[in-house]
Amino acid sequence: MSVQKLENQIIIRNEKFIKTADQLKPKLNETIVKTASIVKMKADTDIIHGWKVETVAPGTFLADSEYGKNDSFVLDFGDHQVGYLSLKIRPAGSPPDAPLKLKLTMGEMPVEMAEPFENYSGWLSSSWLQEETIFVDVLPAVISLPRRYSFRYVKFDIIDTSPKYRVVFENVECRAVTSANISAVKKSLHQDEELQKIDEISIKTLADCMQDVFEDGPKRDRRLWLGDLRLQALANYETFGTNDLVKRCLYLFAGVPDNKGKVPANVFVAPQLIADDTYLFDYSLFFASTLHDYFYATSDIETLKELWPTAYRQIELAIERLDENNILKDTHDWWSFIDWQEGLNKQAPSQAVLIYSMKQAFRLAEELNVPEKDSLKAKLLEIVEATKIHLWDEEQHFFISGSDRQVSWASQIWMVLAGVLTQEENNKLMKRLLAENPAVCIATPYMYHHLIEALLVSGEKELAIAEMKIYWGGMIQDGADTFWELYDPKKRDFSPYGSHLINSYCHAWSCTPTYLIRKYQL
Amino acid sequence: MSVQKLENQIIIRNEKFIKTADQLKPKLNETIVKTASIVKMKADTDIIHGWKVETVAPGTFLADSEYGKNDSFVLDFGDHQVGYLSLKIRPAGSPPDAPLKLKLTMGEMPVEMAEPFENYSGWLSSSWLQEETIFVDVLPAVISLPRRYSFRYVKFDIIDTSPKYRVVFENVECRAVTSANISAVKKSLHQDEELQKIDEISIKTLADCMQDVFEDGPKRDRRLWLGDLRLQALANYETFGTNDLVKRCLYLFAGVPDNKGKVPANVFVAPQLIADDTYLFDYSLFFASTLHDYFYATSDIETLKELWPTAYRQIELAIERLDENNILKDTHDWWSFIDWQEGLNKQAPSQAVLIYSMKQAFRLAEELNVPEKDSLKAKLLEIVEATKIHLWDEEQHFFISGSDRQVSWASQIWMVLAGVLTQEENNKLMKRLLAENPAVCIATPYMYHHLIEALLVSGEKELAIAEMKIYWGGMIQDGADTFWELYDPKKRDFSPYGSHLINSYCHAWSCTPTYLIRKYQL
Repeated sequence: MSVQKLENQIIIRNEKFIKTADQLKPKLNETIVKTASIVKMKADTDIIHGWKVETVAPGTFLADSEYGKNDSFVLDFGDHQVGYLSLKIRPAGSPPDAPLKLKLTMGEMPVEMAEPFENYSGWLSSSWLQEETIFVDVLPAVISLPRRYSFRYVKFDIIDTSPKYRVVFENVECRAVTSANISAVKKSLHQDEELQKIDEISIKTLADCMQDVFEDGPKRDRRLWLGDLRLQALANYETFGTNDLVKRCLYLFAGVPDNKGKVPANVFVAPQLIADDTYLFDYSLFFASTLHDYFYATSDIETLKELWPTAYRQIELAIERLDENNILKDTHDWWSFIDWQEGLNKQAPSQAVLIYSMKQAFRLAEELNVPEKDSLKAKLLEIVEATKIHLWDEEQHFFISGSDRQVSWASQIWMVLAGVLTQEENNKLMKRLLAENPAVCIATPYMYHHLIEALLVSGEKELAIAEMKIYWGGMIQDGADTFWELYDPKKRDFSPYGSHLINSYCHAWSCTPTYLIRKYQL
Repeated sequence: MSVQKLENQIIIRNEKFIKTADQLKPKLNETIVKTASIVKMKADTDIIHGWKVETVAPGTFLADSEYGKNDSFVLDFGDHQVGYLSLKIRPAGSPPDAPLKLKLTMGEMPVEMAEPFENYSGWLSSSWLQEETIFVDVLPAVISLPRRYSFRYVKFDIIDTSPKYRVVFENVECRAVTSANISAVKKSLHQDEELQKIDEISIKTLADCMQDVFEDGPKRDRRLWLGDLRLQALANYETFGTNDLVKRCLYLFAGVPDNKGKVPANVFVAPQLIADDTYLFDYSLFFASTLHDYFYATSDIETLKELWPTAYRQIELAIERLDENNILKDTHDWWSFIDWQEGLNKQAPSQAVLIYSMKQAFRLAEELNVPEKDSLKAKLLEIVEATKIHLWDEEQHFFISGSDRQVSWASQIWMVLAGVLTQEENNKLMKRLLAENPAVCIATPYMYHHLIEALLVSGEKELAIAEMKIYWGGMIQDGADTFWELYDPKKRDFSPYGSHLINSYCHAWSCTPTYLIRKYQL
């Protein structure tokens, strides 16, 4: 993986849009969660990452235990939490004659408790690893850690007290936060227990990612990405209906386009709204897609009217990348996300994303009855036609991508979702894809979502459910409390970052099964 | 060294005294100190601890420098500081897409910058080593570290940013604090430059130890010890005249006697006033001594009247330890401080401290004209007589201590200060001490103070100055900005704690040269 760094990014701030976004800033709902139990991590090669959790004592045991220099223990909060930790510490023995030095390590997974962060050598910043070393000068004390963590487990390492005193942790609790309206979720009692469980964990995953904005991961990145927003919004409409948060996020993106009108792939919201210097072809188009989905979930015509120019502008800018044959230019200087699959050529899937988004944009143009609807339709037909001519390989019966005519899963999936072929052809294509299993596969839950949806829209409900169970059901079997950023059922320890310590184990783009289950009534 | 831990300590709180002490809590004077320069530590075996300081750039250079992962630099604040650090940090490059992880190490001496704390294996708590690892989630940021540090140098280790951004430290400053009234010090322009410098550094040492109470060391321990208070008070009368702080400290001790009326050797003042479970024979007696000195510095008869019973009670309790010959019982279960000299027997020097304190108590009893003055005088004469009979060795012409008849420096020094012999005999004794140099020497600046004062009261001013220059002048030559907890001119690297990293390099009991210089007009 590499990163974009722009030297000459010019942002044209739309203060009206930014103000609208600010006014929609949600109030967070808080829940106090107590320690469930004291646990220990035990090496076990059968378990993912090699670590099993064993219960040592109930959480209430803590207040009766004294700890001194070099003592260590792990607390289990029973489920994934996103929030703020506080601890009440009292001294035992003589009056404390030296500060307490305490190291806390917060982790979503047992491996984060069992393997020392000091050994981390991945290429993402080690600053994402959740730990704090605190000095407490005066005891007893109530320590409220100011940073927010994403965790189920907390490891306590008592680095030092003094020979004269020990410490007792009387109360350790988490003030969990989310902007999701949990009570709005319709109870679903699925006959299929596995799908029921997948639905529940999807909803938990989404809730934990819903904060001031839809974050991509509450542990790592913690910011608003457009591609992830689109999926979170879809899951939200089927569950929490916290639709103002989607609206807020759309206004945030619309608030900081560049001087060509392009919206960034992601934004930061602190210390104020900042557009990242990363632009992705597909993500920009998803502004139109997300606005489309938002409008059909809410019928909020005012927002549609106000944000339509931003959405349409993304389509216009994408069309500028087409060559004389109406096919996307595949140069080395463009960025489209699609998936993290090694070696994936982005041309054909991006072409499909363009078609997919243009269809949605056209529908919005019809709703608004804006003059550009006709040119949009005309251009769309041209592009679809060109795609069938230039990107469909009649011999292989697959869409091909790039100058090497790569046959990838992503190309077929996105072409199905874009509806380039007929329903019948789509169905055949998806079955052919699964049967022939081209080498350039898919890597992320984000792309697995699109695989499942492509199976569903091409009429392969049973195959869709089966794939969902292998993938998200596999995560559950491997101990997921919330769905993960990355998962490969065949290579469970894989991390693209060089360390599974830095992976996010609660990640927005994995939350979509609840959308798929509820929308398509699986 | 070992520590006292009492299981059944009963404290009788005197709320009236504690309230008086609370009302005298000082307002701290604040000074903003900017970074003087960027420095580096260079190995040099000729320098104490093996580290020399070299200037790299002026402090103003900092705001023009960008730092990324694994960068490190050291700031020099130009002189010893006690206070609070704040830093203004801004990002450079792309918007920060990961927290900043920054380690700060604060040190009084170059060795604390040069040698990693991770290797510390001394027996005092490592929690005293001044360091913080902070995570900054949002940049730019102004970070105000909540803990107080004692330092001249601050090492910055930029543990991680991200590949997309670096950081600039626009402003690093210290809000230095003291309760000393700096402006009250009479300028002394000593003809002897070395004594002038010793005087200045004594005053700086005292100022940096004067906070809510007279602390023993602003870096390590940070609490109020009675033996140290006595010396700090003496130095304060000659300089700042911040006499209410002495009064406050006397009331703190008087506020928490045990059920026999004994005052502890030290108290903690946070979260509220707590008597430590450490009692020292000599330190308890110094309550009377400190009250004596306070009264003659202030003529505050009301305080004298109110605290006299506490002072007198310490004398009574000390007298209880005398055997039938009026000599202190030298059992294995008593604690008297005197000095940290290895193998030092405490009997004779403690007997001398008793006589010294009783003489001061008697003078206070006369001022108050209380009935106990007569019995005090009678007992004092008995004890002095017994001391000459049982503890003076007529053959060696030295005071001896304990069953092994140990001849130590401490015994002679304290007997001189207690005025057991005549002025002429004292003079001979001190010269004999220096000439014969008994093996059981003295170890701490605390005991060196008493050596110098014993030389002065026995008429050896030139010898006193010479010794002062060797000891405190030696510290200055070895780079002291403030005087140290421990110094041995012959073994400069020595630490009784197993590591010179944990030594305190600004320590109350080393501040007395200003008292000696000014009081005795050296």
